[in-house]
Amino acid sequence: MDNFEFYNPTKILFGKGMIAKLDEQLGKQARVLILYGGSSAEKSGTLAEVRKALGNRSFCEFGGIEANPTYETLMKAVDVVRKEKVDFLLAVGGGSVMDGTKFVAAAVPYQGEPWEILLKQGETVKEALPLGTVVTLPATGSEMNNIAVISRKETGDKLAFSSPHVFPVFSVLDPTRTFSLPARQVANGVADSFVHVMEAYMTLPQDAMVQDRYAEGLLLSLHDIAERITKAPSDDYDLRANLMWVATQALNGLIGAGVKQDWATHAIGHELTAKYGIDHARTLAIVFPAMLKERREQKRAKLLQYATRVLGLTEGTEDERIDAAIARVEAFFEGLDIPVRLSAYEIDQTGIDPIIAQLKEHGMTALGEGADITPEISRKVLERSL
Amino acid sequence: MDNFEFYNPTKILFGKGMIAKLDEQLGKQARVLILYGGSSAEKSGTLAEVRKALGNRSFCEFGGIEANPTYETLMKAVDVVRKEKVDFLLAVGGGSVMDGTKFVAAAVPYQGEPWEILLKQGETVKEALPLGTVVTLPATGSEMNNIAVISRKETGDKLAFSSPHVFPVFSVLDPTRTFSLPARQVANGVADSFVHVMEAYMTLPQDAMVQDRYAEGLLLSLHDIAERITKAPSDDYDLRANLMWVATQALNGLIGAGVKQDWATHAIGHELTAKYGIDHARTLAIVFPAMLKERREQKRAKLLQYATRVLGLTEGTEDERIDAAIARVEAFFEGLDIPVRLSAYEIDQTGIDPIIAQLKEHGMTALGEGADITPEISRKVLERSL
Repeated sequence: MDNFEFYNPTKILFGKGMIAKLDEQLGKQARVLILYGGSSAEKSGTLAEVRKALGNRSFCEFGGIEANPTYETLMKAVDVVRKEKVDFLLAVGGGSVMDGTKFVAAAVPYQGEPWEILLKQGETVKEALPLGTVVTLPATGSEMNNIAVISRKETGDKLAFSSPHVFPVFSVLDPTRTFSLPARQVANGVADSFVHVMEAYMTLPQDAMVQDRYAEGLLLSLHDIAERITKAPSDDYDLRANLMWVATQALNGLIGAGVKQDWATHAIGHELTAKYGIDHARTLAIVFPAMLKERREQKRAKLLQYATRVLGLTEGTEDERIDAAIARVEAFFEGLDIPVRLSAYEIDQTGIDPIIAQLKEHGMTALGEGADITPEISRKVLERSL
Repeated sequence: MDNFEFYNPTKILFGKGMIAKLDEQLGKQARVLILYGGSSAEKSGTLAEVRKALGNRSFCEFGGIEANPTYETLMKAVDVVRKEKVDFLLAVGGGSVMDGTKFVAAAVPYQGEPWEILLKQGETVKEALPLGTVVTLPATGSEMNNIAVISRKETGDKLAFSSPHVFPVFSVLDPTRTFSLPARQVANGVADSFVHVMEAYMTLPQDAMVQDRYAEGLLLSLHDIAERITKAPSDDYDLRANLMWVATQALNGLIGAGVKQDWATHAIGHELTAKYGIDHARTLAIVFPAMLKERREQKRAKLLQYATRVLGLTEGTEDERIDAAIARVEAFFEGLDIPVRLSAYEIDQTGIDPIIAQLKEHGMTALGEGADITPEISRKVLERSL
């Protein structure tokens, strides 16, 4: 096990009706800005429930944060915060709204041009406004981590930052608030969570029992959820509750503490979203199985461990079990109606060059747990996903 | 899944050499009191390493906190804190020192007689001094929770309290600091951690995937550790690191969030320690298998789940698998050279009455996940362990 530091101070309020506890989480004098995305937060009744929970408190609202939240939009929220003297940010939405809110929190007191926060990956963030979240889409885990991914329309960049200052103070996770999600977004959330676990797990054996066993527990849960969720009624409380808590645990730092992590799939996936506008989770479904094929030897021991402990595959040679495990990963995504090929998006060989160029431009030239995935290897990965 | 709140702000610094990072965790002006137990912290070199890490900082020391830390001793530490104007407490030791330090932290600013903190189970604690820990014994999980158990010599009481104000600000977990532990204490730590997981897990099925799978992962790890640790060299870093991180995760609130918990074994065990001075972990080994036998029907579904998922028992009837699972639990303790019978401590039927009387005196009359374990059922449990 590697040395590590682990710190996660976010308070979780989990369960039906917990939005009612919002107001007591806030300081008496806090002036709140509610940030949200499109019309679904309004239509689903979540915004109404949030407003009601805030009672007589003074608050204002900022809507219109898009999927893959943009710097351009978020800087408008920064202006509102400054003008209205807001001192607490409340994100109501999924990963995009939560990530966007973290950026706003860091940008408001930032000395200098806030895009620098992304360019320096958060290192220059010295303070941030406090923020809380009300989660409507279980997927990114943003509700219990200090990471955000922000896009810039002007340049087509999609970059991440992290900072201990942008952990949500609290996050409300009410599974009933996910009942009205479109099936596509639920499926994306399952896929996103799955790859978050895999980025921490499918690396090298490091004799880290807790991290491995917990990751395997989350993978077992996600396999189970994936099999049931497309057929289950959308108001299956326990199933939604389990998905919600799995998604949070998949990226709250615990399974990645003290072990090598990968994240090459995410790096390549971000470029696919930036270039072709493919949903984040769907880019992961394209890249991850191809990554396993390309990095089969480097990930051999962990592929076998996954085959045995998660999939229960014990028959056949090692290579047969690895083949079967990779096939099961593809089947996992396809069972969620998520394609695992670039061709599903009408992208062919000629579509790969721009992605490789972007990876180089963003310095993504030594990816993976061994920092040995060069742009040429990323190209091979993408070719395997054609 | 039940509604829940989860909050755990303790920062973990894990790994060899991490004590060197102590000073940077503390405010520049903090006046520190180091609290420790017996001579082992000195002999092992841990105290020397801690003093060195504090550099030129002003600090004082309070040694002599006993196993099952007593109110009488801790109130002396409270006097030192007040007299020396200490504003940060640093526990160096195992569960007893950490628990004792939490009590001191809450007692110093307490309005009124501090024993009331225990009588009111922490509800009356409104503030506490900040504290950190350097862990030398992986067992209680006290390094990452807000719980403490304190004894009172005068009355023979052993009571617990919890408060959000006594989470350690940070805890340093350096596995090398456990190398010099006596084998008996290491074994006790494995047993204690095992029962902590079981108190959250071996209850009722509640369709809580994350909690169940994580608990099962910790149990799988503990079965593995138990098989190896009595034979492994005491400086097996990875094994000690895994034990240390398992012990912390076993009682940091995560596996118990949103599910019914038991804790009847602990309640009865505490009385055995208070009356007969048996090591805490060893009381659990006496009570827990007997509890499973007595509560077999109430815990039936979870016993079968444990048998399948953790022990891999798939042959035979349900009752045969439950018998085998309970036998494996007994074998787990016995493999650590920990007896599972009261007779090993020369306690017979006549020794049970005083324990039942104590349970009644402490209001422990409706124990377990169903709050239906009366003193008469506790008696039956103890009779099964004769």
